[in-house]
Amino acid sequence: MFRLNQDYLKLPGSYLFSTIGKKAGAYRAAHPDRTVISLGIGDVTQPLVPAVIDALHRAVDEMGHAETFRGYAPDLGYAFLRDVIAGWDYRKRGCEIAPDEIFISDGAKGDSANIQELFSADAQIAVCDPVYPVYVDSNVMAGRTGTYDAEKGTWSRVIYMPCTEENGFCPELPEKEPDLIYLCFPNNPTGSALTKDQLQVWVDYANRIGAVIIYDAAYEAYICEENIPHSIYECEGARTCAIELRSFSKNAGFTGTRLGFVVIPKDLKSGDVMVHSLWARRHGTKYNGAPYIVQRAGEAVYTQQGQEQIRAQVAFYMENARIIRESLKKTGFTVYGGVNAPYIWMKTPDGLSSWEFFDRLLEDANVIGTPGSGFGPSGEGYFRLTAFGSRDNTIEALDRIRRFYE
Amino acid sequence: MFRLNQDYLKLPGSYLFSTIGKKAGAYRAAHPDRTVISLGIGDVTQPLVPAVIDALHRAVDEMGHAETFRGYAPDLGYAFLRDVIAGWDYRKRGCEIAPDEIFISDGAKGDSANIQELFSADAQIAVCDPVYPVYVDSNVMAGRTGTYDAEKGTWSRVIYMPCTEENGFCPELPEKEPDLIYLCFPNNPTGSALTKDQLQVWVDYANRIGAVIIYDAAYEAYICEENIPHSIYECEGARTCAIELRSFSKNAGFTGTRLGFVVIPKDLKSGDVMVHSLWARRHGTKYNGAPYIVQRAGEAVYTQQGQEQIRAQVAFYMENARIIRESLKKTGFTVYGGVNAPYIWMKTPDGLSSWEFFDRLLEDANVIGTPGSGFGPSGEGYFRLTAFGSRDNTIEALDRIRRFYE
Repeated sequence: MFRLNQDYLKLPGSYLFSTIGKKAGAYRAAHPDRTVISLGIGDVTQPLVPAVIDALHRAVDEMGHAETFRGYAPDLGYAFLRDVIAGWDYRKRGCEIAPDEIFISDGAKGDSANIQELFSADAQIAVCDPVYPVYVDSNVMAGRTGTYDAEKGTWSRVIYMPCTEENGFCPELPEKEPDLIYLCFPNNPTGSALTKDQLQVWVDYANRIGAVIIYDAAYEAYICEENIPHSIYECEGARTCAIELRSFSKNAGFTGTRLGFVVIPKDLKSGDVMVHSLWARRHGTKYNGAPYIVQRAGEAVYTQQGQEQIRAQVAFYMENARIIRESLKKTGFTVYGGVNAPYIWMKTPDGLSSWEFFDRLLEDANVIGTPGSGFGPSGEGYFRLTAFGSRDNTIEALDRIRRFYE
Repeated sequence: MFRLNQDYLKLPGSYLFSTIGKKAGAYRAAHPDRTVISLGIGDVTQPLVPAVIDALHRAVDEMGHAETFRGYAPDLGYAFLRDVIAGWDYRKRGCEIAPDEIFISDGAKGDSANIQELFSADAQIAVCDPVYPVYVDSNVMAGRTGTYDAEKGTWSRVIYMPCTEENGFCPELPEKEPDLIYLCFPNNPTGSALTKDQLQVWVDYANRIGAVIIYDAAYEAYICEENIPHSIYECEGARTCAIELRSFSKNAGFTGTRLGFVVIPKDLKSGDVMVHSLWARRHGTKYNGAPYIVQRAGEAVYTQQGQEQIRAQVAFYMENARIIRESLKKTGFTVYGGVNAPYIWMKTPDGLSSWEFFDRLLEDANVIGTPGSGFGPSGEGYFRLTAFGSRDNTIEALDRIRRFYE
């Protein structure tokens, strides 16, 4: 008689955003007359930019003619895309990353969930707290995280690195030595960023103890300040300790178009074995490439025109971030983030728990955000708003919040 | 110090089609004057049909306007696609499958590699021999397959079910009871098909012993004969023992467009737990949906016009299959398959091994096929040709083969 993967069954409840979706759905069904505005899930609302739309149409036309039709893509992605990424995202910033160290995928969520597969079953992971849930959940499903303490909301074999007001949402080096360190900067959910010097401390630490940093740079396009690294490879020594995850979702609005990539330098090794080889093998066996038309769309992002258009879109969202930040401050909330990231991390008022505030905000203002505690125990008492709404919705949501809480 | 997943390192050599690609590349580089024709990897060559191209253009236009732009897709796929699949592929054939038992994905390769994750680490798998390599390799990477016998090319904990001339390439029930049974019919690589009665034996067996059948129906569109089931759910009792994998790659030419789906009936349970819930959880945590534009393309396949157009394309490839089959027979080869499947399974001449014949065919006729032994030990002495070439290439390749072997 077949048996199920018991590690899957350890996962408590369902994925954070599914829970929010269900709560929102129930509220909408019960109050069809009210307009609920979501600043919750990090989904974009602006259309794909013209350069990308044009590239998609051209690629679709190619697929309609035998002479230009494309079947299976190269395992690791088309050279035309890997080349422009290596040039624009790395060479231009002084990072030494070759095109064949870049693996094209259908997005960073899957990559961040799958990357753990390359490591031993007993690898000890360290995560920021609060944290994007996928890092931990994917390791739970792989049986790496020990037992769950439902009261604390923590796993016995996970090293949590609190990111709090006290340390400016910058994690401190853990006491116990991890094998894998997940870092996401600019950070989801706190909206904080690390300076190059701060990140260099982590690179040096990882090299010293022989750990791998899985660096999620999905929000690098939102960096506005100087001296904040866009890639971990701006730090010296990162080629021997770091994997970088990138996404087209937030810089170019590809949440529903799906494209991302992983960078694994060939210098990252365990003994003689390159981590690069294992990921290549995983791609070859478990994946069949991102769609040709979507890879062409990604290429268009790296044209002069494409860059100008997506920068304007990022600036639009960052103006939303400014509006949210300023409005919440004026209303009297304590607010973080929103300067180098599209996320605003606010303290809940009146000592409310994150979910209590979620329910109240939904009820009072018909606004949806994300409870900080959904990202980990140190997120309790916080609440995340995103800058990805339309301008009108963002302003309207903040007006409603001000009305109830001023 | 971090360590790698030792199960990954157990995989002998690289993925079959990567090896073929490298050999072909080396030959082409050494003989730039010769035209090499590939009837090897199962990649289509006909363009996407007009109904699909139109749907893609329309969807791309939607993505260019804020009012019709789509961000993250629903975890399990858009209802518009799941509804038409449930109608056309199942209700029309008398199979009771609900839209919410269908999970949209980016293709059957990933699904067939990932589905094993839902089951216990010690689950015993049974596979046909020869077999599509991904079923076994994904289980090797999950540590389920024991030790490798390099001489035999087999794993100690895998139950192999030989499919040979003697049993008409229809596997016999194994002596040892498996937990997971991988079946692919119409079959890759042998091109054989099972009748409904033959498949019913497997469904009854799985229900009796409490096993799960993972039924890969990627080639159902190629079925030409009566009484060959297009879905395992045509068999009585399949809802309590079978998962079905489907693909748009071979019926609609989506190898480079990427779309597939998995069917998991809610009646498939271990104790009280639905397998369906675990796959839903996997989608929610590790996957972010197929691109909107590609899901619209999939929807177009299920229109009257789309169906007529893809049927014409399948008929085109099946005419290739007929040409290959007839020509090889006339040349004196022993040939199987090619009637309900786009694959022709030929015996190698003169007692050559599969790889010896591969090398000779490449050298003599500049034609690439796939060595049968690459699919498992019982594939030794066989060779696979595919019907996915253009008409001219197919005829030319067979002419060359005839010239050398007649």
